[in-house]
This record gives sequence, C-alpha cells and structure tokens, in this order.
Amino acid sequence: MARASTPPASRVLGLDIGATKVSAAVVADDGRILSHGGRALHDNEGSDAVIDDLIQVVRRSLRDDGPPIAVGVGVAGQVDPGTGVVLHAPNLRWRDVPLGSVLSSEFGCPVVVENDVRAATVGEWRHGAGRGARDLLCVFVGTGIGGGVISDGRLLQGAAHALGEVGHSLLVSGGRRCHCPARGCLEAYVGGWAIGERAREQVRSDPDRGAGLLRRAGSEEAIDARAVGESALAGDPLSRVIMAETGEYLASGLVGLVNAFNPALVLLGGGVIEGYPALVDVVSERVRTQCQPPAARAVTISRARLGHDATLIGAAELARARLPTPPAPVSRPVRIRARRVVRR
Amino acid sequence: MARASTPPASRVLGLDIGATKVSAAVVADDGRILSHGGRALHDNEGSDAVIDDLIQVVRRSLRDDGPPIAVGVGVAGQVDPGTGVVLHAPNLRWRDVPLGSVLSSEFGCPVVVENDVRAATVGEWRHGAGRGARDLLCVFVGTGIGGGVISDGRLLQGAAHALGEVGHSLLVSGGRRCHCPARGCLEAYVGGWAIGERAREQVRSDPDRGAGLLRRAGSEEAIDARAVGESALAGDPLSRVIMAETGEYLASGLVGLVNAFNPALVLLGGGVIEGYPALVDVVSERVRTQCQPPAARAVTISRARLGHDATLIGAAELARARLPTPPAPVSRPVRIRARRVVRR
Repeated sequence: MARASTPPASRVLGLDIGATKVSAAVVADDGRILSHGGRALHDNEGSDAVIDDLIQVVRRSLRDDGPPIAVGVGVAGQVDPGTGVVLHAPNLRWRDVPLGSVLSSEFGCPVVVENDVRAATVGEWRHGAGRGARDLLCVFVGTGIGGGVISDGRLLQGAAHALGEVGHSLLVSGGRRCHCPARGCLEAYVGGWAIGERAREQVRSDPDRGAGLLRRAGSEEAIDARAVGESALAGDPLSRVIMAETGEYLASGLVGLVNAFNPALVLLGGGVIEGYPALVDVVSERVRTQCQPPAARAVTISRARLGHDATLIGAAELARARLPTPPAPVSRPVRIRARRVVRR
Repeated sequence: MARASTPPASRVLGLDIGATKVSAAVVADDGRILSHGGRALHDNEGSDAVIDDLIQVVRRSLRDDGPPIAVGVGVAGQVDPGTGVVLHAPNLRWRDVPLGSVLSSEFGCPVVVENDVRAATVGEWRHGAGRGARDLLCVFVGTGIGGGVISDGRLLQGAAHALGEVGHSLLVSGGRRCHCPARGCLEAYVGGWAIGERAREQVRSDPDRGAGLLRRAGSEEAIDARAVGESALAGDPLSRVIMAETGEYLASGLVGLVNAFNPALVLLGGGVIEGYPALVDVVSERVRTQCQPPAARAVTISRARLGHDATLIGAAELARARLPTPPAPVSRPVRIRARRVVRR
C-alpha cells in the first residue's frame, strides 16, 4: 500500500473490481491518488468472498483515518447505478449482486456503483486527457474493447446501462468470429485477444516470416498483443504489418463511431494503445479524411492519460458528485502554510 | 392547403425545408396537424428566395388567424439550434444562413431551428411511435440515411450538431463507393440511391433475371428503390433477393448501432421502409440474435408512424417547448363528460 497524505475532507474512495483483481484508492478532489492498494482475486471466488477481499483492501488503505465520506466502485460488468446492483458481470460470474447496499451498510456512507469503463470515462473527463470536453468518446482497447460517451456534458447510460459497446460494430461482414454472438466485429480484429490470434495464425502459416516474432515471444502460445506490440517497436517486419493492419481496422471502426456520436474529442486508452501508441496517429489521420466533414472538422483524437487509475479516479469522482454539498476545495492546508509564513 | 380548425392557443407552426420543397403546418399540442401547406422549390433558388417562399406558405396557412405564437423549422442540413443558424445545407447550397433571426423578425415570435432528421425524431418521440421512450434511436432510410438519438429523455446534438449520422458506419471494408468520403458505408448499400444502383447493376449483368424488374420500371434509368420495392411486393424473384439483401445489410448496420447506443426502441422510417415494411422484421430478428445480450434484451424494433409529417410535428414540438409557460393540456372536454355522467 503506497501512501501519501489523506486529509480528512478528501476521504473519498474509488474502488475497481476487475476480473482478476480488486483495487482501492483514496482520491483527492483534484483527482490525485493519495493512497492505493489492491489484491489479486482467486479463481471462482464467489461474490461474498470478493466483497470481503474488497473491504479488507479498503480497511488497509484507510487505516486510522476513520471512515470514508463517499465510495465509488467501478465493476467490469453491467451495472444499474440507480440501485447499485451489479446486474451481470460475466467474468466474475455475478448476477444481481446488491453491491451498493452491502458496501453502504459496511462503510456507513453513500456508495455509487458504475460500470468500470464508464467510470474510467468519467476519470479521463474530469481529471485526465478529457478535461473540459462536453462531447467525449473514450475507447479503451485492452483484451476486449469498451467505450464510454459524454454528450453535452452528461455521461450516457443507455436503456440497459450498456451504452458504449463500441467493440461490437461490424467491421468485416461474415468476418472473424467474435466472443459475442456476431462475426466480424471491431473487437474480433483489434481487441488484444484478437491481435494475438491473428499473429499466431500468421506465424503458423508462414514460419519464416514469423521467426522473429516467435523468437521474441518464446513460444507460439506466448504470442499475444503485448508481444506483437513490443516486437513491432523493435522493428520486426511481420509484427509491424500486423500492428499497421490493426491501426487500419481501428480507424475503420472509429470512422463510423465518430460519424454516429459526433464527439469533440476521442480518447484512446487501454493496454493495446499504451503498448503501441503509434496507433493513435494512424487512426487520427484516417478519421480526418474519411468521416463526414462536420464530424471530421469537430473531432480531435488523443491518448487517454490515466492508465489503470482511470476507473478508480472516475469512480471516486462519481461518488463525490453524489455528496449533498461537495466539500470545498481543500483550503485548510493552504491556511496552515500561510500562518507558518506569518510566524516566521 | 388542407384545413381543420385552428384554435388560437395552438398557433404553433412547424416548417420543413427540404431539398426540393418547403412545407408548413399548424400543429396542435397533441401533435395533430390542423392545417398544412407546401410549395416546390425551383432549382438554384438562393436562400432569400427560399425564405420568401416559406413566408408565403406560412401566411397562407395562417390566413386570418393572426400571428403564430412559436415557430419550429426543420432543415435538411447542419444547424446550430442555439443560434438558429443553418451552418451548411449542401442540397440547398446554404452556408451560415441566420434563418432563426430572419423568421423571428418576420413573425415576431420565438423561432427554433433544428436539423430535419432530429426534428423528425422529436416528432416520433413526442407524438408518434416513440411516445414514452427514454432511450430512442430513429433511423430514416430514404434516398440517404439519417438518424436521431434520444438518450435518457434528451435529444442528443453532438459537438457540431451532427450526432446520428448512422448511415456512415462501415458495412463492407473497401466496399461500394459512398457519397461521403469513405467506402462501404451502410448508406452505400441501403440508401435509396444505392438500392437503385445495385438493382441496375444486376439487371445489366443478368438481363434474363432482370427482365421482370426492367418491365415493371419501364426503363433501366427508372429502376430506383421504389421500383425495386414494388416489384418485390409483386413477387419478382430478383427484386425479392435485392430487398432481402438490403434487409441483411440494414440489420448488420443496426447491430453495431444498437450495441453502441443501447436504445430501448429503434424506429425505422423513411421511404425505403414505407415501401417495403418487411425490412423491419428481418432487422428485428437479426438484432435480437446478434447484439450483445444486454442491448438485445432491452430493445424493440418498430416502424415509425408519422411519415413525412414527422419533421413538421417535431419542429412544432421543439418550438412549443421553448415557450415560457407551455399551454396546459386540454382538460375541458374531460370535465364536461364527467358532468354529464353525474346529471344522469
């Protein structure tokens, strides 16, 4: 548990329940993480065990500082922020878990539960690369692809709190199998799992051309999106081709999304982008030339800035926004410092 | 000019400036059109001449009833509803026309200017097949394809007031040329112009198979979406295949859009749908089985209901919403009926 200072007025917690770990952070009202902790989840932990893990992580992160004044949780799944219920989190195997009310009883304070990608979108919007944007589309390209949308200064939810599933727009009719019920989705080409799959196919079909990538990765099974990205950065020709194709696919998907959502700013984040940031330039150029002119003129494409912390920071921000009177910007430390100056 | 009654409290006008005609209607607060008029536009009329035409149409539709209390205008183009300026209407060849302020001076009342598709979306939402929906996607398939989105009970605008260009999502990578800068867009397969183009190609490449469609249309140039739809309804095998393919294309596009926007209701309207309503069933079935489960479970696909009047009705509704105190719902008829029951 890394710790900085935790001024009492800022005891707002951001939590992140992913498929493989839980994290907690005390987040200041300017978005800085003041303390931070986490714990890996075991396979097949039930929801009670995961929530117990989470509470332990929170207790350790707060230590003697007293209870939090508000808690926000980002969960990798379909969430109803109105009730705090996690409706369905396939990777966690959760259905209808009343996470908000359980944590609210535990901590005695307001708890906001939100989808992790939507929380990350709020994080980037309020304290990351999206500050000040009124119309923002965040696309996170990790193992899968998720998106969040701010329109006219509001986070969009959708009828089933599932708005922003931008990885499942069609890219190639009748194309590669996706993990969803359709074929040829953006995610089936650009998601981390798909980049690995495409690369392994190429290595198998042309071993000579694939020798460099195979050597770097160590074994065929170890060829994943990260290995392809690193190998491309190191100059391996096949890996560079695969990442260039990935950029073209991502651009094609984003052209449709920018036409549909007409954002002022698109932020690209997630492991695949962080591993190979040149994708942002490919996409930016293509969107500029291929979108409808009003949408093309209005949009800027940039990298997200907060990395893995985006969900924690955004979840805390959502919790802070629910407080009856948001705490004033921390003014006491400033006053104390001023007094010291006077005493000298 | 067809006329019903025009009660003074309901003198809210809806106007529609399309590429080939202007229309005006006095619209009651329940969405009924009380009087209706229109005029064809001449080629290359400048914006001043079009606005003069429009004012004449309005004067005739109001006759002796005095000035309107509010005016809403739907324009086929990019519009800033905040300023009432038509930023760009390519078919009208307008750029930066201050339509709102011109009409406001003319009529001495508040004027709201909105994109015609967005106005039509509001029409369907308030008084058509979308009544009561909080999350609605309207897709109008005419010569081109346009869309409008209501999310959590609000009409979305986008950064450049261009949100909802759903016809320009990718459908076939490197596919058919579109009228936009990209290739393979949904509109390049499903827009009325594209259906005609696809049909003419098939008739040329296989004259035997195309004979039935050619005979019905009269000439190759006369083969358009309407002719293909009518011919399919009359049982012509080639036309039926073309419309079935059109349904598959539309469904593929809508799967991505339903995943991205997560609407509770998708309304399909426009000439192509009205000419061949079976498209709605094809799309509905495919969306149900191919979308991400939360989005698929949440959505219903139906036909829009207001046809060409949707823009007029929606524009009037937007104007009425700007009035300082909206006229109370008509409650007198109900009270009268209750008294009659008591007297018996």
